[in-house]
Amino acid sequence: MQIIEDLITAYAHDIDDDELESWPNYFTEDGTYTILTRENMAAGLPMGIMHCQGRGMMADRIKAMQTANIFEEHTYCHILGRSQINRHDQGFEGRTNFTVLRTMQEGRTETFAVGKYLDLFTVTDGETLIVERKVVLESRRVDILLVRPL
Amino acid sequence: MQIIEDLITAYAHDIDDDELESWPNYFTEDGTYTILTRENMAAGLPMGIMHCQGRGMMADRIKAMQTANIFEEHTYCHILGRSQINRHDQGFEGRTNFTVLRTMQEGRTETFAVGKYLDLFTVTDGETLIVERKVVLESRRVDILLVRPL
Amino acid sequence: MQIIEDLITAYAHDIDDDELESWPNYFTEDGTYTILTRENMAAGLPMGIMHCQGRGMMADRIKAMQTANIFEEHTYCHILGRSQINRHDQGFEGRTNFTVLRTMQEGRTETFAVGKYLDLFTVTDGETLIVERKVVLESRRVDILLVRPL
Repeated sequence: MQIIEDLITAYAHDIDDDELESWPNYFTEDGTYTILTRENMAAGLPMGIMHCQGRGMMADRIKAMQTANIFEEHTYCHILGRSQINRHDQGFEGRTNFTVLRTMQEGRTETFAVGKYLDLFTVTDGETLIVERKVVLESRRVDILLVRPL
Repeated sequence: MQIIEDLITAYAHDIDDDELESWPNYFTEDGTYTILTRENMAAGLPMGIMHCQGRGMMADRIKAMQTANIFEEHTYCHILGRSQINRHDQGFEGRTNFTVLRTMQEGRTETFAVGKYLDLFTVTDGETLIVERKVVLESRRVDILLVRPL
Repeated sequence: MQIIEDLITAYAHDIDDDELESWPNYFTEDGTYTILTRENMAAGLPMGIMHCQGRGMMADRIKAMQTANIFEEHTYCHILGRSQINRHDQGFEGRTNFTVLRTMQEGRTETFAVGKYLDLFTVTDGETLIVERKVVLESRRVDILLVRPL
């Protein structure tokens, strides 16, 4: 599904570009966004590390982040694997492996996060939106900078 | 070729999910699976580090691995690049770069393997299967844990 | 756009395979190739670290590189994320995140480069060529081995 893959790619590029204000617009009005670890997921603890319900809560988080952000400047680059997309109820479900590489001010690059997106999408009148995005991280060792969307 | 790329992606996700029993089913009954290094390949030594001929041999290997596995628990995440797919005889050939990231129990992530899949596929009656998969690793320094399929 | 993504993938594979002579042929006769850092780009300094104008200059660079190359042998493997492709004037523009993993003679693998391709393409009579490729690196810490195309 071209249009779903386009959305997944555009989402990653916007975050890489620090266009965080546009982040909530990838979701439906009451869409959900959850970051959890693979370990949480396997243990049936789906609420995880961070949970946003609805665009309003997402926008609040971005505002809080921009106010609080006193850390040195990093840059982020998402490398996405190919998505697996299937029909699901009235919409589609997707799975996309990713790694986010972070580059420090002085030039060093490190693996910031590795995991998969487990998504539900709705496609209506040519508009594609995320109904639910679970960001399932491989590692339980979560960076405290993880106030930023992934 | 959508259906071939779907197979390549599903294969990687199954291994990431530890669904190793389904691994032989991606191949034709007498399909082959070989792990070799780029150096081997260039030197015309194509048999490499590991070679399986047929689903039976693949299934045996999975069983042996599950019996022998006394190592600490890791998790694996494949990041696949875009595939190059071309017609070849009665089927298709494909090339897909990959990296496999391994996360340790305590949370550290490292590059486990980097290389490319060189594949031959058959597509019949809507069923797509691997006739031959060569996993060509960049590094000659091969982890002894490499009893696991890549 | 299948044909554009095919070109982007083939370009990366050719470089991985050390088929550097074919590199200029991915560009139009007077196509441009520029390597710059994200920091340069943000500061409006687009000429960056390296700039080639036209196939002739690209071919010269490959020749110079092959003459000068006295370094130990490394291998390179591009992992490309999914491309974002849009119409642009008479052609197309594309953005593709990438990471290049370098493996040393003794087997160690490291992240050599991380960044994005910002491309302009022309598609005529079934032939797809690069009109302009900007390689925007995340890091200002640029390896001196960066005489090689990315």
